[in-house]
Amino acid sequence: MTLISLADVQAAAERIRGGIVRTPLVPTLWADRLWLKPENLQVIGAFKIRGALNAVGKLAPEVRARGIISHSSGNHAQATALAARHYGVKAVAVMPEGSPRVKVERTRALGAEVVIVPPQDREPRTLALAEEHGYVIVPPFDHPDVIAGQGTIGLEILVDLPSAGTVLVPTGGGGLVSGIATAVKALSPETRVIAVEPKFAAELQESLEVGERVTWPVDRTYRTIADSVRVGVSELTLAHIRERVDGVLTVTEDQIRHAVRTLATESRLVAEPGGAIAVAAYLAHSGSLPPGDVVAVVSGGNIDPPRLAEILGETLDGP
Amino acid sequence: MTLISLADVQAAAERIRGGIVRTPLVPTLWADRLWLKPENLQVIGAFKIRGALNAVGKLAPEVRARGIISHSSGNHAQATALAARHYGVKAVAVMPEGSPRVKVERTRALGAEVVIVPPQDREPRTLALAEEHGYVIVPPFDHPDVIAGQGTIGLEILVDLPSAGTVLVPTGGGGLVSGIATAVKALSPETRVIAVEPKFAAELQESLEVGERVTWPVDRTYRTIADSVRVGVSELTLAHIRERVDGVLTVTEDQIRHAVRTLATESRLVAEPGGAIAVAAYLAHSGSLPPGDVVAVVSGGNIDPPRLAEILGETLDGP
Repeated sequence: MTLISLADVQAAAERIRGGIVRTPLVPTLWADRLWLKPENLQVIGAFKIRGALNAVGKLAPEVRARGIISHSSGNHAQATALAARHYGVKAVAVMPEGSPRVKVERTRALGAEVVIVPPQDREPRTLALAEEHGYVIVPPFDHPDVIAGQGTIGLEILVDLPSAGTVLVPTGGGGLVSGIATAVKALSPETRVIAVEPKFAAELQESLEVGERVTWPVDRTYRTIADSVRVGVSELTLAHIRERVDGVLTVTEDQIRHAVRTLATESRLVAEPGGAIAVAAYLAHSGSLPPGDVVAVVSGGNIDPPRLAEILGETLDGP
Repeated sequence: MTLISLADVQAAAERIRGGIVRTPLVPTLWADRLWLKPENLQVIGAFKIRGALNAVGKLAPEVRARGIISHSSGNHAQATALAARHYGVKAVAVMPEGSPRVKVERTRALGAEVVIVPPQDREPRTLALAEEHGYVIVPPFDHPDVIAGQGTIGLEILVDLPSAGTVLVPTGGGGLVSGIATAVKALSPETRVIAVEPKFAAELQESLEVGERVTWPVDRTYRTIADSVRVGVSELTLAHIRERVDGVLTVTEDQIRHAVRTLATESRLVAEPGGAIAVAAYLAHSGSLPPGDVVAVVSGGNIDPPRLAEILGETLDGP
């Protein structure tokens, strides 16, 4: 399987420059040697605009002009809608019945045509629409151009903190950690890149232990509050992770909630549970991390206000 | 009265570079032509580190070595403590009885010696300690070096968005808006700089109408939830504002709460009420602002978690 290269990530950085927020690295007073990469500050509230913008931008103009289609119940629909708008082309978002109304509305507000289907029809309907109209499918993580776009975060981290010792990355489908590891390990081989998963959706950890890609049934991964990382890796992302990622850490539900609360109260950042798991890993495992500065990617912030209010109201002990 | 100059702000930018977060300008999807300057991302959760770091940095080393003293119940105590730590000198924070425990603890955690006194003794005790030990007093806003430090925000805004049409600035003591207006009006005279106050603490608006500095009694300004901007301007900041600020807008308590909620849910930023009033002014008055892009400074994010939870749980209509 062909892996993406540092050059792919560097080309992506050039391509997406005008369409993303160049997020800073933010130090913390509440944790020793911890820096945050707040990707929740992207206008759609998550890093996914980077990959979508790179994938859409890389298309030949005449292909792109046919329109873009994605299927997603979450942040990826908004990412592809915004990327299509950036290039002035049509976007279609296939979303499952029962998607949060706010996500449907936001996707529509970005100019996308939203097609609501029964959950099991998402993929076939997407394929059918793509075939019928010539739309280009932009997948959420299982594509080299998407992975290269997410990797631009790794380039930025090393510009801002060349001495980074460890980079902790929230991991579901694995596009984010695959891209970041590609950039970071090429430029700074001694920096550790660690994937972080909820214990309740630790398919990557099990896949690496077993030696082949393992997926868990939905009723198992749905036990975690971290909705955005319930999905498992693909063969493509698993290949990148095997080659370039230094390890996997897992976190409990209490640790995730504690991280969401700490980010809001101590660093003034609203993170969704899946976006806070790298910080949770720092809080739970900092003693066992190698020496040097630690960067935790805060990958997204799309949390329902009542859920955030509930977590802020909890009295949580440290992990 | 001598006003600070653009050169003072530019020198401040050079001086504080290594000690602050270089915050980005963040566009929004939920408001037309609105950009946010998220100063709540500074490690102490507020812009005040800029002014404190400039004031402490500008001292002659042998003077600075005697130590720094401040009196504050809020963000300024942490700002001076962090600035003193940055230069490796002693900090003393005189704080009133009844200060929130978390603020006292955070100030101590930054290495400052905290002296708790009855509220009415804050200023005399600070003066007495300064005289006895030779400490240098760093005031929260009424000092040219503090104003110049806050002004660095204006330089950054124009680097990131040279075409900014209007800059909205939360205003209490007036150091922030004085500094920003100094930088912005010198570099881009056609950009409007507007001070924003709560209606319940609109001392600046009244001062400008009356033609002299007006202060309101504490029981009047304490009606606003926006604790960080309850204080009125000084003669020094009023002189800057008269000369360089284009106008004043005021906002209601409902508008402030709506802005706090919108920042958290739509832009993933935790803002304190006083830090959200520029956004409140945009939401309430955007129709009457001149054409062009609008920048709202989000000046701080130190809000009690129960208060934030309460606001997130509210169903608020738009302003």
